Amino acid sequence: MRMVDLIIKKRDGKALSTEEIQYIIEGYTKGEIPDYQMSALTMAIYMKGMNTREQGDLTMAMVHSGDVIDLSAIEGIKVDKHSTGGVGDTTTLILAPLVASAGAKVAKMSGRGLGHTGGTLDKLESIPGFHIELTEEQFIDQVNTHNIAVMGQSGDLTPADKKLYALRDVTGTVESIPLIASSIMSKKIAAGADAIVLDVKTGAGAFMKTKEDAEALAHAMVNIGNAVGRKTMAIISDMSQPLGKAIGNALEVEEAILTLQGKGPKDLTDLVLTLGSQMLVLAQKADSLEEAREILEASLHNGKAIEKFKEWIRLQGGDDSVVEDMSRLPQAPYTIDVPAWDSGYVTKEIADHLGQIAMKLGAGRATKEEEIDPSVGIYLHKKVGDPVTKGEPLLTLYAHDQEVSELVDEVKECITIGSRIEDPILIHEVIVD
Amino acid sequence: MRMVDLIIKKRDGKALSTEEIQYIIEGYTKGEIPDYQMSALTMAIYMKGMNTREQGDLTMAMVHSGDVIDLSAIEGIKVDKHSTGGVGDTTTLILAPLVASAGAKVAKMSGRGLGHTGGTLDKLESIPGFHIELTEEQFIDQVNTHNIAVMGQSGDLTPADKKLYALRDVTGTVESIPLIASSIMSKKIAAGADAIVLDVKTGAGAFMKTKEDAEALAHAMVNIGNAVGRKTMAIISDMSQPLGKAIGNALEVEEAILTLQGKGPKDLTDLVLTLGSQMLVLAQKADSLEEAREILEASLHNGKAIEKFKEWIRLQGGDDSVVEDMSRLPQAPYTIDVPAWDSGYVTKEIADHLGQIAMKLGAGRATKEEEIDPSVGIYLHKKVGDPVTKGEPLLTLYAHDQEVSELVDEVKECITIGSRIEDPILIHEVIVD
Repeated sequence: MRMVDLIIKKRDGKALSTEEIQYIIEGYTKGEIPDYQMSALTMAIYMKGMNTREQGDLTMAMVHSGDVIDLSAIEGIKVDKHSTGGVGDTTTLILAPLVASAGAKVAKMSGRGLGHTGGTLDKLESIPGFHIELTEEQFIDQVNTHNIAVMGQSGDLTPADKKLYALRDVTGTVESIPLIASSIMSKKIAAGADAIVLDVKTGAGAFMKTKEDAEALAHAMVNIGNAVGRKTMAIISDMSQPLGKAIGNALEVEEAILTLQGKGPKDLTDLVLTLGSQMLVLAQKADSLEEAREILEASLHNGKAIEKFKEWIRLQGGDDSVVEDMSRLPQAPYTIDVPAWDSGYVTKEIADHLGQIAMKLGAGRATKEEEIDPSVGIYLHKKVGDPVTKGEPLLTLYAHDQEVSELVDEVKECITIGSRIEDPILIHEVIVD
Repeated sequence: MRMVDLIIKKRDGKALSTEEIQYIIEGYTKGEIPDYQMSALTMAIYMKGMNTREQGDLTMAMVHSGDVIDLSAIEGIKVDKHSTGGVGDTTTLILAPLVASAGAKVAKMSGRGLGHTGGTLDKLESIPGFHIELTEEQFIDQVNTHNIAVMGQSGDLTPADKKLYALRDVTGTVESIPLIASSIMSKKIAAGADAIVLDVKTGAGAFMKTKEDAEALAHAMVNIGNAVGRKTMAIISDMSQPLGKAIGNALEVEEAILTLQGKGPKDLTDLVLTLGSQMLVLAQKADSLEEAREILEASLHNGKAIEKFKEWIRLQGGDDSVVEDMSRLPQAPYTIDVPAWDSGYVTKEIADHLGQIAMKLGAGRATKEEEIDPSVGIYLHKKVGDPVTKGEPLLTLYAHDQEVSELVDEVKECITIGSRIEDPILIHEVIVD
């Protein structure tokens, strides 16, 4: 087999065989296939696409390029959830204890990531004492006895994907749906997932700006998952405005606590129930999405969900009294209310721009080396569609510095107040196969 | 400027600016732009194409990546001719003295090349004593006083093209018309051409297998030439069967001598007159293609053309008595006639396959290091459309070894004898602007 022939085959729009894809990924991981051939191939894939069988083969070839987490010692079906990322996305913090409280096994490897706020690990670490360093044995034990554990990524998972992503980033092939879909799915499968629930975001704050692209990506991932024997479901959810009301690490923990007590923002609660229902069905803890939703709604209101959260905090060394006294979470030295400059209805809150402001406040990191400040961020008192009266607080900035006038000016570029509009749609689509 | 942004621009089908193309070629030549970015860009160019302005910019950027031959000391317009290559293509050996005999300046740098037979230099060197090592001063002097000189390539011409071609070869982007056209034109311009005549071959023995592809390439090159101020013309000529009757180095010199005496094969003579007419017009030695053709036909029949050839041989140290006594050219020890196995008409002589047989006889080289044998090759007694009687010689193999039965069998796969067919078309199209 010669790599140049495989490039030509894909260039001419033909499908690569399973063996050919394995040859490519193995050779590339070992350094036997050079970057300059791989980048030509990925550009050809960008242009000509890949069918579902090819995407499944690519996914599994990347899974087998490195370590694969073996969660077989955990009884039952291990369901993982993945979000394509957005602003103020606290779902994992809520979903993990919520579905665990309903009997599903949550064994999650999580990352820190770059972006507007920290990753799930950073958010959890804003709880005093919480640590994410577990051995694999502790991790498996904790899931078997308590249904829930989250730890930092261990081992060398999907090195082919890491290498390929770095190459795509500098050669103009990031935005390829078959490549994005295979990349995401390979990481979930290498981390041991038996079944996967996907939250594909669309809108200004999402990687997929249009609903069509988000749908294409969601269908691609669901098809890959089912092709490689991992039952997979997805939803398309809105990220034109931030999710929930909090953007920032400790602020999102507070929001998670409220939501687990049944007192969360409507959109976040709705999203968590939708994703959680899919997780329960895939974990075979409910027979239908409707039944699953009833179980989860009950758990939010009868205290089971928040008790599971407290149990989880204690298991990983954290101070669970933050649930009763949220002032124990890191507090920003300055809070600056931004009052509404007009009366009417909030018609727009541009998610990515608000995310960038949160990042400037110190809530996120642009490079791996940067430190984040868990206390800072933004709290939105009003969301799109809400009525607002001139002078009342529209949002609050949580800052470590008093001088934020530039950011206040910037906030005004992200939000518009106008005439009443229809309520925004949060969940565009539910994709179950 | 960032290379990744330029890759994305081309990937999305937009035209690159003059400055962007210069940045790319300069950076790539210097090694500042890595192969893996260049190969992604060339795949995007393969898919999305380039407009004429971009192709002209790419051509000139490659010209200026290295040495440019300065022929300004030669008076008059320097016309170069380029063929895209085929089997039995002896045109340069004939055209150079023919148009020189009509007053045009022929200052040609030529190569050895890889393929079925040697390049122009190899063919010339089969004339005893002929040498192609001239200093630039000798070269210019000889053209000024005698209108004709051919030398081996000197200097570091179009290093960007060499580097890019090597990359394209291993990344599946050789067959891109904008890239082929820019590559050819850059080499001609760097070698000092003021005007260029192109012979684009089509058919089994050509790089461009279809007439449509050949036309597209010819138009691309004519457009580039005219866009960068080099008056350019082209023809599309047939290469489904070999050109002329001789395939091999000394055999083609013999054929050139006969043609320069007005006794050459009809197809070769016709092609030479067509290309030569374009050269004379571009050199401003004739006002129209018709006038030019009359001048050249006269030269073939009144001895001027063959006298110029003899003069040229003497100027470059060769033995011009080969013209009167062709047995002074290298002679193969064995000649093996292949008789016709049937009576009828020759309906097919597959050019590339016959070329491969010539190569197996030793007429060509696959790698730069190989030696060629000037004496060996194939002589076709019959061409497509000719009547043939069973038992009469169809072709003769010139070999250095008596045992050629395998090649005789192979010859039979290349040639078919059947019912009378229409005469094949040699010149499909003449493109003057």
